[in-house]
Amino acid sequence: MSASPQKSARAGAIEHEPILVVSMGDPSGIGPEVTLKALSSRRVRSGPPVVLVGDPGVFDETATRLKLRFRFLPWSPPEALPQSGIPVRVTADLSPRDRKLGKPGLAGGKAAYDAILEAFHLIRGGFAHALVTAPICKANLNAAGAHVPGHTELLAQLSHTREVRMMMVGSRLRVALVTTHMAISQVSEALSIRRVLDTITITDSALRTKFGISKPRIAVAGLNPHAGEQGLFGDEEIRVIGPAVKRASRRGIEVAGPLAADGAFPRAAAGEYDAVVCMYHDQGLGPFKLMHFADGVNFTAGLPFVRTSPDHGTAHDIAGRGIADSRSMISALCVAGDLARIQNTA
Amino acid sequence: MSASPQKSARAGAIEHEPILVVSMGDPSGIGPEVTLKALSSRRVRSGPPVVLVGDPGVFDETATRLKLRFRFLPWSPPEALPQSGIPVRVTADLSPRDRKLGKPGLAGGKAAYDAILEAFHLIRGGFAHALVTAPICKANLNAAGAHVPGHTELLAQLSHTREVRMMMVGSRLRVALVTTHMAISQVSEALSIRRVLDTITITDSALRTKFGISKPRIAVAGLNPHAGEQGLFGDEEIRVIGPAVKRASRRGIEVAGPLAADGAFPRAAAGEYDAVVCMYHDQGLGPFKLMHFADGVNFTAGLPFVRTSPDHGTAHDIAGRGIADSRSMISALCVAGDLARIQNTA
Repeated sequence: MSASPQKSARAGAIEHEPILVVSMGDPSGIGPEVTLKALSSRRVRSGPPVVLVGDPGVFDETATRLKLRFRFLPWSPPEALPQSGIPVRVTADLSPRDRKLGKPGLAGGKAAYDAILEAFHLIRGGFAHALVTAPICKANLNAAGAHVPGHTELLAQLSHTREVRMMMVGSRLRVALVTTHMAISQVSEALSIRRVLDTITITDSALRTKFGISKPRIAVAGLNPHAGEQGLFGDEEIRVIGPAVKRASRRGIEVAGPLAADGAFPRAAAGEYDAVVCMYHDQGLGPFKLMHFADGVNFTAGLPFVRTSPDHGTAHDIAGRGIADSRSMISALCVAGDLARIQNTA
Repeated sequence: MSASPQKSARAGAIEHEPILVVSMGDPSGIGPEVTLKALSSRRVRSGPPVVLVGDPGVFDETATRLKLRFRFLPWSPPEALPQSGIPVRVTADLSPRDRKLGKPGLAGGKAAYDAILEAFHLIRGGFAHALVTAPICKANLNAAGAHVPGHTELLAQLSHTREVRMMMVGSRLRVALVTTHMAISQVSEALSIRRVLDTITITDSALRTKFGISKPRIAVAGLNPHAGEQGLFGDEEIRVIGPAVKRASRRGIEVAGPLAADGAFPRAAAGEYDAVVCMYHDQGLGPFKLMHFADGVNFTAGLPFVRTSPDHGTAHDIAGRGIADSRSMISALCVAGDLARIQNTA
């Protein structure tokens, strides 16, 4: 989705200045806390304006607890954004019992779900230009009626996107995953030429259209140690990954692989590649989180709009204690802001 | 193996100053080049004395090519080490045809094998106190009569060691591997409580006896993403890894896990753990090499003596071009020197 001037005008935005929308996340987790901490950071304040979606009571209470002085103002499209204060698109009005910190519940799950739906509608309507999702409680999302594993699948469904891929984004590394939350013993069977090829093309397309990289250079990791060492330790590189890389290359994508994973990351971090396509979760996330422990951002490649999220969960065990680390949320907002601006000028 | 004063005296060493021994490696690869480059570095020259084992002709030719002025002096135990020059324990005298750079051959493989055997005998005899192995060509080692996959297994066999483990050592991370060169699809089956437990105890013992850490803190990674998330993505954490960690803990080892791999590495790098036990090659080597790309050292845990090696191979494609990076060999020598001194003072 590119933000056309008409759409920006409709959203009441300053011409060419995009608007970010943040869905509240589960009210019993650390989502509202890291969101407000991030909004009070200089880096986020100097970025595009932010609209919150959810329950203003949750935001009020969180701000009071954190001693942050924010003024939350109800806002609905197509109104212009207020000149000061934080606009909140109101989608819930939970009772204090239903937003108890550390105690995820059905009503909170439903409120989190409704916030995502409305945030998506704001994006689709052109009233906002990039989505940042605060963490949800997946079990309660399901109980609330969203029959999907998480945000990513829900947003794909809403936007009628066939294939999306989880991508981790940091200042030095970008990692895209062919498979995600799956037992290691099942990864080999789950790989196919189609699935690897789709990941490469989705990554290439996201880097071009969302990150503004005109000719992305992509490394593809092998599945096995030393990328199988010519079939000595596994043949998925020969049967599946190699052919997928060849087809991607024939489509004009600048792609190398299958490479030994432990060799690919230092080269990517040194700037040789714009992203590493990994076959499974820990292959990508292990190196990524070592380099971007606190500031890594989850980006959903393949969606027709920019969506980021912090790379942590609801952390119910520390909710309400004021100690949640907001660096990943700050990065999620900054990356979303940067990418929204790239879209706007594209 | 602890170096007793008698043994040091027998080896003609300065009292309490250990001696390092380097096996030549495959003469057609970059082993001799990185060895001599390392010997000319200030860090290595300020460390313990080094004995080379192999073909003096190979070392002479390499030094000439690299324009390094070394005097190589034939040395045999129990002679005292020369006051200047580099002592070489001569185990081969290859014809120029048999030590052609970039062209691994049977005679070179045999020479590499003999150098390892003699280096081991120097260690066993107490004439040297830590072994650094330059890279070999595994195929030619086999053809030369060593029916083992590589150095590690050969040294285990020679020293009658039942179980050894590959460990990667850097200034910020140490990683021990439960499985190594094996297809990902076979890792789950290869895991057993015994194998994981052995890895934990071997790692703990190596950290105590070789690294001088009195109470090592060990992290054990899960096999699956999020360490299986309570059995949601695989049950190896519940069936195998968890029970192994519990048993190790009952033996008095300070061990935590199974932990999500992507969370364990940042914590280990921050100093919370002395080593991370990983279930498979890329789980450990991916993060490790990102942090220690050029200066990582391979250490064999479980052997009764210190053995390190650079974490690269023979690199026949660049042999003789003078461009091989010697940083990993420098680190291998420095780590071996540090550990030999710990042994000596233990």
